[in-house]
Amino acid sequence: MNYLSWQAGIVREYRRPDQFITQDFSDHMHADVNESAVAEALDVVGLNPYIATESHMDGAKTAELGDYYRSLKHQNYLVTETNAQTTDWTSSYQFPPYDGQLRLNVYSNISSGANMVEYWHWNSIHSGQETYWKGILSHDMEPNRVYAEFSRTAHELARLGPELVNLKIHNDVAILYSVDSLNALDFMPFADRGAQWSFGKPKVDYTALVNQFHTALYDLNTGVDFVTPESKNFADYKLLVVPALYIADDALLTRIADYVKGGGHVLMTFKSGFANEHSAVRAVRAPGPLREAAGFSYQEFANLEQPLHLKAGAFDEVKDRTVNYWAEFLMPEHAKPLAFYEDPFFGRWPAITENSFGKGTLVYEGTWLSDELQRVLLIRSMQDSGISRVGADLPMSVHVKSGTNGKGRPLHYVLNFSSDPKTVQSPFPGTDLLTGRRYAGGAALSLGAWDLAIIEE
Amino acid sequence: MNYLSWQAGIVREYRRPDQFITQDFSDHMHADVNESAVAEALDVVGLNPYIATESHMDGAKTAELGDYYRSLKHQNYLVTETNAQTTDWTSSYQFPPYDGQLRLNVYSNISSGANMVEYWHWNSIHSGQETYWKGILSHDMEPNRVYAEFSRTAHELARLGPELVNLKIHNDVAILYSVDSLNALDFMPFADRGAQWSFGKPKVDYTALVNQFHTALYDLNTGVDFVTPESKNFADYKLLVVPALYIADDALLTRIADYVKGGGHVLMTFKSGFANEHSAVRAVRAPGPLREAAGFSYQEFANLEQPLHLKAGAFDEVKDRTVNYWAEFLMPEHAKPLAFYEDPFFGRWPAITENSFGKGTLVYEGTWLSDELQRVLLIRSMQDSGISRVGADLPMSVHVKSGTNGKGRPLHYVLNFSSDPKTVQSPFPGTDLLTGRRYAGGAALSLGAWDLAIIEE
Amino acid sequence: MNYLSWQAGIVREYRRPDQFITQDFSDHMHADVNESAVAEALDVVGLNPYIATESHMDGAKTAELGDYYRSLKHQNYLVTETNAQTTDWTSSYQFPPYDGQLRLNVYSNISSGANMVEYWHWNSIHSGQETYWKGILSHDMEPNRVYAEFSRTAHELARLGPELVNLKIHNDVAILYSVDSLNALDFMPFADRGAQWSFGKPKVDYTALVNQFHTALYDLNTGVDFVTPESKNFADYKLLVVPALYIADDALLTRIADYVKGGGHVLMTFKSGFANEHSAVRAVRAPGPLREAAGFSYQEFANLEQPLHLKAGAFDEVKDRTVNYWAEFLMPEHAKPLAFYEDPFFGRWPAITENSFGKGTLVYEGTWLSDELQRVLLIRSMQDSGISRVGADLPMSVHVKSGTNGKGRPLHYVLNFSSDPKTVQSPFPGTDLLTGRRYAGGAALSLGAWDLAIIEE
Repeated sequence: MNYLSWQAGIVREYRRPDQFITQDFSDHMHADVNESAVAEALDVVGLNPYIATESHMDGAKTAELGDYYRSLKHQNYLVTETNAQTTDWTSSYQFPPYDGQLRLNVYSNISSGANMVEYWHWNSIHSGQETYWKGILSHDMEPNRVYAEFSRTAHELARLGPELVNLKIHNDVAILYSVDSLNALDFMPFADRGAQWSFGKPKVDYTALVNQFHTALYDLNTGVDFVTPESKNFADYKLLVVPALYIADDALLTRIADYVKGGGHVLMTFKSGFANEHSAVRAVRAPGPLREAAGFSYQEFANLEQPLHLKAGAFDEVKDRTVNYWAEFLMPEHAKPLAFYEDPFFGRWPAITENSFGKGTLVYEGTWLSDELQRVLLIRSMQDSGISRVGADLPMSVHVKSGTNGKGRPLHYVLNFSSDPKTVQSPFPGTDLLTGRRYAGGAALSLGAWDLAIIEE
Repeated sequence: MNYLSWQAGIVREYRRPDQFITQDFSDHMHADVNESAVAEALDVVGLNPYIATESHMDGAKTAELGDYYRSLKHQNYLVTETNAQTTDWTSSYQFPPYDGQLRLNVYSNISSGANMVEYWHWNSIHSGQETYWKGILSHDMEPNRVYAEFSRTAHELARLGPELVNLKIHNDVAILYSVDSLNALDFMPFADRGAQWSFGKPKVDYTALVNQFHTALYDLNTGVDFVTPESKNFADYKLLVVPALYIADDALLTRIADYVKGGGHVLMTFKSGFANEHSAVRAVRAPGPLREAAGFSYQEFANLEQPLHLKAGAFDEVKDRTVNYWAEFLMPEHAKPLAFYEDPFFGRWPAITENSFGKGTLVYEGTWLSDELQRVLLIRSMQDSGISRVGADLPMSVHVKSGTNGKGRPLHYVLNFSSDPKTVQSPFPGTDLLTGRRYAGGAALSLGAWDLAIIEE
Repeated sequence: MNYLSWQAGIVREYRRPDQFITQDFSDHMHADVNESAVAEALDVVGLNPYIATESHMDGAKTAELGDYYRSLKHQNYLVTETNAQTTDWTSSYQFPPYDGQLRLNVYSNISSGANMVEYWHWNSIHSGQETYWKGILSHDMEPNRVYAEFSRTAHELARLGPELVNLKIHNDVAILYSVDSLNALDFMPFADRGAQWSFGKPKVDYTALVNQFHTALYDLNTGVDFVTPESKNFADYKLLVVPALYIADDALLTRIADYVKGGGHVLMTFKSGFANEHSAVRAVRAPGPLREAAGFSYQEFANLEQPLHLKAGAFDEVKDRTVNYWAEFLMPEHAKPLAFYEDPFFGRWPAITENSFGKGTLVYEGTWLSDELQRVLLIRSMQDSGISRVGADLPMSVHVKSGTNGKGRPLHYVLNFSSDPKTVQSPFPGTDLLTGRRYAGGAALSLGAWDLAIIEE
């Protein structure tokens, strides 16, 4: 870090006043980099959120990366690379965007806090490793289908940019992201990731758990910030989501317990509090310093050889009652069991507990929940935390993202990630900046395939 | 090549007049060898066409290798190794021939132009890597089932050899085989070959495409020669089949266009003309110098994540209408679309086009066709080229291969690759050299399991 | 071996009279170690029979390892490590024992001849590779569920130990185990083990064949000893089971033939007698020196690409008539075919033969049998050998193991490897040492989940 700051200092000596220092953080969160610390040396964070196109485009990854990298410096960021035509180092993964997807990708980034969207690259390269990582232009250097959409979007931004730039975003929910826990759980995984590998990406690990939480919140149209073990601002949030905080020093666990005691709401999963900052298992009953706030202890745990289901009598409205991979044998002390396993052996221990501690509550998941269960647990925690849901009746493909623009006006993006046009009730009153049309709250709002509205209140 | 020629020159100084220089080309076409050039240094080409036995024996690989290596010097060749008993470096792939298969393999090779069939090896080895690569005799060095069939066949050849040797073969169809395209498409494959791997052999690559064409022609009882980018004799053929000619200099593409203009018929697939002889993508609209002959251009292409089907209205008689892996977004200029994709996005571009250019036609496949579609496209192109089909009503397992023997008499091999005896109508009048029986054209001809007739007109 | 004996000699000079030399042989039979020779240098054999828990616990591996390592020195052995809580180097294979399984594991070992059961380890380690290889205590160092069961069992042993220790076991059946055959068949496998791999363990190789025989005998409640190629005591057994004795010198094969001639019964499989002690295939008809005792010869063999079934007319009562992987083309000379393949090609050769030779018989399996067929062949050979079956009507999960204790009293363990309680007819009269209850032969005996009785006659 000293090295990076020293380098940045030299650059700062010589730059013009209108120049700044940035760096692109690739297109994922990095296991081997302390990104918070790197960000301190930069003026502006840059990232390259490449996305899946065609029927796979849903905005989820763009939102998650935007939330994470925006949170690093609590400021807007730049998109230094993203999909132009197709992307890949071979000719076997060439998936050009459907009509509308290039444009929707631009606004998807801006609605997360991006102040710029740049492409890799202008024209396609005629030889070498990135021959098939195509630019806006093909190898023939002529205008084409994708160029036409690029051009349309650029002209829109020339017109609307001042209304959109510097979007201010604050959220009520934060996810506590621990890169140390990610690394330690890669070394001692809680599931056989070989068996769970899917399309080059493990389905079950720390990152998958973070993604599960973020995607559920994104699908609930609920904005999210990220906090890290170094963050001192837990109290800014009504709900703190804590995935598998395997590595944590006593101070961090105490800070979480204090947050609950002071009225905060925590939704936490298995493995949290198990090991200290040196990856040594604590020599006291798990979950260590969290024991009082959590309201239980445990001495045993198991991998689940087969998925289990929750026992009837709790969350009965949920269809996919599957739990999987891992189960801690939670022994409630003053916690209340919320659900049990349907199993003669595992059934004696609760799968999910809730504990009132001070003015707040801590809900604990001792096992990996199905996506649907996770969503229901999040809705429950949001209700308990007093967080209201927006657009609960929107179709799954329509997503809402909100902030405040430079004029101090609330701005709401309503984005349709679908090849099917959708007509919805506008969750907000205001004017669509793209079309100039005015909507009363609840008025019919029509969105084309891969289209959007930007409602300024 | 100079080195090989220099070595061959030295050997030629010292050999007896009845001695010759040969070399065995293993049992497949080689990505890393310029086989045409090597063949120039030899007097006679040798090859080792090992085959799958038991229910998998169908003669297809023997025919393809025979056609290719015969075409190298436009002359007969030697089989220097082929299956005796079982073949493999382990004891886990031991598949001895069914009764009749060793004999049928001999005639299968001779009917493609082989002048000799030799075995690896006489008796089985008692230790080492090839312990289970068994010879005509087992480890016990005694006569056995396979030896008995070998002996029967050898006595037949002692009697019939002079009628069979030096079979002259000329065909109306040629496949343009480009080893440079094979190598470049291995480096930049058009399909995820990992996912398509099957029994140690990729299903989808340049070689698989060549095999698909050759097997279809073999199943149509249509003889094939091979030509290479260096060949100057395109005009000797009525139909030129051009699989994925990814690497080609302008001169070669111009020669193909001139062949069409002069009255030739071409059946060509995707990727042809895309890159020049240095594997650099051309900086003009694809397919580069072929654009006028092909009658279209394209700027975009895609891998198909899932197989698509051809839209109804074309080739409606075909059951397996699947296309897969790759799709070029063909924009016809004066070409006629022959078929479209059934898909809301891809459906706007044709999957197959036909263009009249000068006195000939060029049919272009912008995607990978199902085996059945490929067969139908080949039949269509053969009809347009004025090539008549022989034995169109034969059962699938019965194959016909023809040539002219040393006496100038047409010789037709009718081979039954099946454990079931077959009775067919003889497509030719003449005498079966094996049994001495005479057949009028259309007369009933009975073939035992893995048996054959050799009809001399 | 000289080195080990020399080292052991030095230790023996300095040890106290009550001290002894042991070594733990890990938890499997070793391909790369001559275990018989190592055992000669030891006073007592030690082993670490780790087992699968939860629904997978069945006692089979414990019995097989116990039988093998007990046979090395024909004396009782020590269990130096076995499962406490969970075992694994990662957190992804954590399967704690069900209630009762830790205790049942102790008696399962003792009933095979163990004189001690020791754990790895007392308390769980807080960091490093074996963090999740848990001891009797968890990381919290407090009593827990598993400790409670450990404690109960330890108190039982304090009371009953003198009745149980030094169990003498003699059996009528021996399996001839050849580590040289194991190694040679790993180098030249008779099945494509890649395709047969299952849960990290090949299903089809020499070890799998040995396991198939041992498990079948264990399920038949029939005690087994192991003999090796060096053993001179074949005549101590009524039935000698010989799996795939691929490597054997002439002397060993002659000794087996002499055993049959003298009245012994042999059940032998494919590959036996094929190669000599140098892994060279014999240059005479297979199975070499066994030919007269076996009553057949063969010159050919094949891998089976698909499973075949036995032809109707033999073993018709068997439901799973599958044979697989390998088939020798047995040509009977004076052997009697017991069963043929249902196949037009393979059907001409018998799959199983029986030969009377001198006063004994040799049954030969030319192919890999289904588990059910193997069980039936074993029952048949046991009947022919005059070996009576005990507890034939017990449920599959209930196993019987017998011996004679230090007082010279027959001791019978009746063990229930199931989560379901079972009530059976006691196969033996006597007193259950655990409960003090007396049973007449055939009386109702109730066993809890993962529970047992120890009947002293």
